[in-house]
Amino acid sequence: MNSRMKKIVVIGGGTGAYTVLMGLKNYPVNLSVVVTMMDSGGSNRVIRDEFGILPTSDLRQCMVALAGKNTNDLVRNLFTYRYRQGTGIEGMTFGNLFMIALTDIYGSQKRAIEKTCKFLGVKGHIIPVTYDNSHLVARYANGAQVLGEHAIDEPNDRNGKSKIVELSLVPPAKANKKALQSIKEADLIVIGPGDLYTSLICNLIVDGVADSIKKSKAKKVYIVNLMTKFGQTNSFTAREHLKELEKYLGKNVVDVCLVSKKIKVPNEITGRYKEENAELVKEDLEGTGKLRVIKGEFQSDIVYEKQGSDKLKRSLIRHDSDKLAKAIMSLL
Amino acid sequence: MNSRMKKIVVIGGGTGAYTVLMGLKNYPVNLSVVVTMMDSGGSNRVIRDEFGILPTSDLRQCMVALAGKNTNDLVRNLFTYRYRQGTGIEGMTFGNLFMIALTDIYGSQKRAIEKTCKFLGVKGHIIPVTYDNSHLVARYANGAQVLGEHAIDEPNDRNGKSKIVELSLVPPAKANKKALQSIKEADLIVIGPGDLYTSLICNLIVDGVADSIKKSKAKKVYIVNLMTKFGQTNSFTAREHLKELEKYLGKNVVDVCLVSKKIKVPNEITGRYKEENAELVKEDLEGTGKLRVIKGEFQSDIVYEKQGSDKLKRSLIRHDSDKLAKAIMSLL
Repeated sequence: MNSRMKKIVVIGGGTGAYTVLMGLKNYPVNLSVVVTMMDSGGSNRVIRDEFGILPTSDLRQCMVALAGKNTNDLVRNLFTYRYRQGTGIEGMTFGNLFMIALTDIYGSQKRAIEKTCKFLGVKGHIIPVTYDNSHLVARYANGAQVLGEHAIDEPNDRNGKSKIVELSLVPPAKANKKALQSIKEADLIVIGPGDLYTSLICNLIVDGVADSIKKSKAKKVYIVNLMTKFGQTNSFTAREHLKELEKYLGKNVVDVCLVSKKIKVPNEITGRYKEENAELVKEDLEGTGKLRVIKGEFQSDIVYEKQGSDKLKRSLIRHDSDKLAKAIMSLL
Repeated sequence: MNSRMKKIVVIGGGTGAYTVLMGLKNYPVNLSVVVTMMDSGGSNRVIRDEFGILPTSDLRQCMVALAGKNTNDLVRNLFTYRYRQGTGIEGMTFGNLFMIALTDIYGSQKRAIEKTCKFLGVKGHIIPVTYDNSHLVARYANGAQVLGEHAIDEPNDRNGKSKIVELSLVPPAKANKKALQSIKEADLIVIGPGDLYTSLICNLIVDGVADSIKKSKAKKVYIVNLMTKFGQTNSFTAREHLKELEKYLGKNVVDVCLVSKKIKVPNEITGRYKEENAELVKEDLEGTGKLRVIKGEFQSDIVYEKQGSDKLKRSLIRHDSDKLAKAIMSLL
């Protein structure tokens, strides 16, 4: 490791973190990702309830993104595979079964994660935001309170139309020291893209994380989503995304916002997005004070397919990894 | 691949094939292993019945033996791991879940095996003896007939004390062409060590295998077991082992027998073997005609432990990989 290499820390989870990492990994930087550990849907519910280990879906996507070139293909296929049959096995992800086995073999999930990263030749540092077993709680404007990432990610119709007024963790979670350390030492911190509450803010509410970001001398970059998400950011403009983030992170912490302009939703999938009550994010942010706003065409030309055996909804238009990485690197 | 490298083909399965391969892989030879595909016990029964794919336990042991140096440690642990809890998952092997996922992803078990070997950096060729879904049938001297490798490997008391008079396959299985090709081109063929019927003869009764061994110009080496096995080789001496093998392979086919002398069973495990009705194999073989008998101290100094969560019985004293390999290489 070249100690003079610039340190970039990505904070997030899911497809968003994957996309950013796929671009940044091609640059000569010291790359870390602080990953959310609050997923409670599908296969992750099984491993939390039945095996007592933390969810690994978000970790796995980061591992696949940063895996060495030799192993990438088969690993990508396996780590995104979900069983389609088998008593007790149908609906499980291969990745969760992998992590269950390794955690049993090596005695802790922490060691299991380290071993997996080494095995995959992961370039960079994959850092769970916490090792505490904690669940998200959302309080809505309509007075409802909901437990579990799963229930927030796929809300019922009534809550989905309401606004989240507070996101918290039950029980409170202490940050992984490595996460705080990497944030402290970073030259640049990237937050997003990703589901505002269930991939981004869920990290900021872990004890110590928002504080260490504030104190870090790193340049802080927030990448605004392309589309709104039902139940989290209904009709939010770019400015409202940032405002909501600042509620948990603090004002004037973000230095740079990357906002996508000229977002295009291909005709064949407008119906899908309409069904999901998702809209284009309006680019109404302007630089003020220390805040710099970079508007660019960051959308990928590829339209992504939903996975066959996966019941969760996945974004269909995405950011372009290379374009994002180029914009991020220009800030260093 | 250096085309002038000598070609060695190992035929067998289980711990025996693993042991031989672990030694031979350190030599500059073109190494292949023709592997039994008839296992029907435990986790393998589940994948045959519920997923319709062939058993992979024997394959996996060979893969672990020949895996590249970088991946060996974690892979060895994972591929010998058996889940200890979880609805529908307890008792499954990680390796079988791995193969189920890959078979689904790549559309056939054949491609799944090829991909796995490439992934593991396997040195050599791992060749299923057949891709047909076929089960072992044993007919005993007492008139009983039993279906399934599992039932032969762990016989009831009545059959266990009887002698197997015929081993066959239902339905008959056609040999994998690659298996026949490798046997044809071999300079040396190693049969055993391993359970006489369920790891060795089960390969010879696949259509075409015994015949191609007979016709091959390779030197044929049979490695006699250290201990007898209840229900398969009760009280068999080395000579009786060979005689039984010849019943399926043909007479005067084996050129060399490696027989262990001075076998020692440590005090602490004599009880275990007594419980299993296993005895030392008496070294009563002598060279006659073209048959050469090499008697040596081929036993390993290590006493192997039974795996905790594995209900199948494993051999506790074993051959020494390096000593066997040295003896085999001296025959080339």
